[in-house]
Amino acid sequence: MAWIEPEVTEKPKKPMFLCVLSSTKTAHIPKLSAAGKTAELTDYTPAGDAELMETGNIISVPVLPMTPPYDTPTPAIMTRSALKLTDAPYHFINSGLIVTPDVPCIDLKANPGEDIREPVAVMDVQGIYERAKLLAKRLRNQADHVVIGESIPGGTTTAMGVLMALGYNGNVSSSADENPLELKKQVVEEGMKASGLTFGCLKDDPMKAIACMGDPMMPAVAGLVAGFQDTDTSVVLAGGTQMAAVYALIKHMGLNTEKIAIATTRYVVEDKSANFIQLTTTLGVPVVYVADPGFGKSSMKGLHRYETGTIKEGAGAGGAMYLAGLFGITQDQFRTEVENVCKLLKAGH
Amino acid sequence: MAWIEPEVTEKPKKPMFLCVLSSTKTAHIPKLSAAGKTAELTDYTPAGDAELMETGNIISVPVLPMTPPYDTPTPAIMTRSALKLTDAPYHFINSGLIVTPDVPCIDLKANPGEDIREPVAVMDVQGIYERAKLLAKRLRNQADHVVIGESIPGGTTTAMGVLMALGYNGNVSSSADENPLELKKQVVEEGMKASGLTFGCLKDDPMKAIACMGDPMMPAVAGLVAGFQDTDTSVVLAGGTQMAAVYALIKHMGLNTEKIAIATTRYVVEDKSANFIQLTTTLGVPVVYVADPGFGKSSMKGLHRYETGTIKEGAGAGGAMYLAGLFGITQDQFRTEVENVCKLLKAGH
Repeated sequence: MAWIEPEVTEKPKKPMFLCVLSSTKTAHIPKLSAAGKTAELTDYTPAGDAELMETGNIISVPVLPMTPPYDTPTPAIMTRSALKLTDAPYHFINSGLIVTPDVPCIDLKANPGEDIREPVAVMDVQGIYERAKLLAKRLRNQADHVVIGESIPGGTTTAMGVLMALGYNGNVSSSADENPLELKKQVVEEGMKASGLTFGCLKDDPMKAIACMGDPMMPAVAGLVAGFQDTDTSVVLAGGTQMAAVYALIKHMGLNTEKIAIATTRYVVEDKSANFIQLTTTLGVPVVYVADPGFGKSSMKGLHRYETGTIKEGAGAGGAMYLAGLFGITQDQFRTEVENVCKLLKAGH
Repeated sequence: MAWIEPEVTEKPKKPMFLCVLSSTKTAHIPKLSAAGKTAELTDYTPAGDAELMETGNIISVPVLPMTPPYDTPTPAIMTRSALKLTDAPYHFINSGLIVTPDVPCIDLKANPGEDIREPVAVMDVQGIYERAKLLAKRLRNQADHVVIGESIPGGTTTAMGVLMALGYNGNVSSSADENPLELKKQVVEEGMKASGLTFGCLKDDPMKAIACMGDPMMPAVAGLVAGFQDTDTSVVLAGGTQMAAVYALIKHMGLNTEKIAIATTRYVVEDKSANFIQLTTTLGVPVVYVADPGFGKSSMKGLHRYETGTIKEGAGAGGAMYLAGLFGITQDQFRTEVENVCKLLKAGH
């Protein structure tokens, strides 16, 4: 049985995985983000994810990124497993981190995002976009197929924010057991008010939508996509509603979206509180790859939490599995590697 | 006639150029560094070099890096030309910059180096080394042959500093018309005194030699070399006396130096005030590639300044030419491209 749908077979010659790491102070709103044990600890989550993806463990951050109440380990365990199994080239990109990891990141000189209830959520959107575009131009001769993931706590709320500003229903997914959708809606409403916005009023100004309601991950990914335009390099956005929001942004920027796919996990697609498939259909995303790690078959209880929807996506996990699929890795091989990663971490039990 | 000696023919499958960008406050000592119009403007030189190498022009820095009294353009024009002609993959690495460029850099989280007359010249030497090593491990599957250059004003003085601490005669080269060798010696002597060092006393502790007398470029390059050890990836250090100093450091660290070459310009080798060939012979460097851009044949007077020794090396120019040679670029093709780069800059006349 294929664990990536639609099935992937042809391995690209020069694939590359990129993960954009960012922060938004929106994540400091209590109970909004579950990508960390407490609102404050979410500051460490992207750094912890990067250290885990690179080395198999955390180095400088005080605690493994995990989600309460069952301390489910970060989806970065899946990305780590895929990178290890495929030996695919990868880089981390710092686009506005509050806490930087002790592993090398390509720096886009972005400031952390502000709380979207402030008048300006992201400063220097154009500058971040241009630097990311330069980076993609540099990477053109190093990759013919690029999978771009993200790690930014609070990112589903900012995704809802830009979707609303662009005129889309933004019922977003969450990294929590119970999606605090009402709280997110309230925060977004306050943010729209603080910036003087109405539903869809920025459909012709996606850069301003990022500046008012977004986060620093967005101009970074959009700039990367722009830098790979008109080349033979195809792009897969690895994520759930957050990457759907990025897709909406680049579409409204007028970029060519024909060769851009989204890859995510089964858990995002099956999230009843969100409307991922409806959204990507409305947006006209050419292909959505859905990856199923089959954690139900695992003996590790922490991994079962993914099956019950405690965590759904993050650190480009869906796209990393898609990449593993391209390399011919099977679901069983993949799940076994994730279990090995968890054993080394003494997590996921 | 070969413009790279010894002649190079076999093009590697996956070459990569890396340039480590750093600052040391040693460059603020008046008249010490000529890598900038004034001592203060040297802060902008590595950033300007990176912007020029990536885009063909400066973006954010106020002035093109150039050397008085004839405003000779930075050797980064050669590196730019080589990268353009070869389309070789490359990255810039920020290891302790005072001013960062507006092009993406891989960040090693290093602080700028202090004046070597202070007790500590480089903080967190081990941390920089370890992060650079991680980076090289990440890049292993992206490159089988890595050319590593540097851009750090004041770097020949810190090179002399570590060479003295390791027990080598450190008559170093310079990016100036008249090498201020006496001033450099005096600064190094003061630095040795401030750290309580004597000639050769740190031959068994190269990390401490960097901490006391070096700059943040050194642990970065050493860490990269360490990360490529025991792989099929060979390394060429691109630079003059500065890279000879790095070679000395990695040798004293006990790393395997059999597969490590140095590539530099004819101008460094012919610098009578320095002792580059004597030094590399003493150190047992397996191969020294010497590149001659043949600027004497150029109609642009600024380029003639290189022939008279105004500038000698920098931004990995010698190694970049070596790389161009590997790609089958001729001296004439190369010089023509450098002239094109200068015309766009309206420099070098």
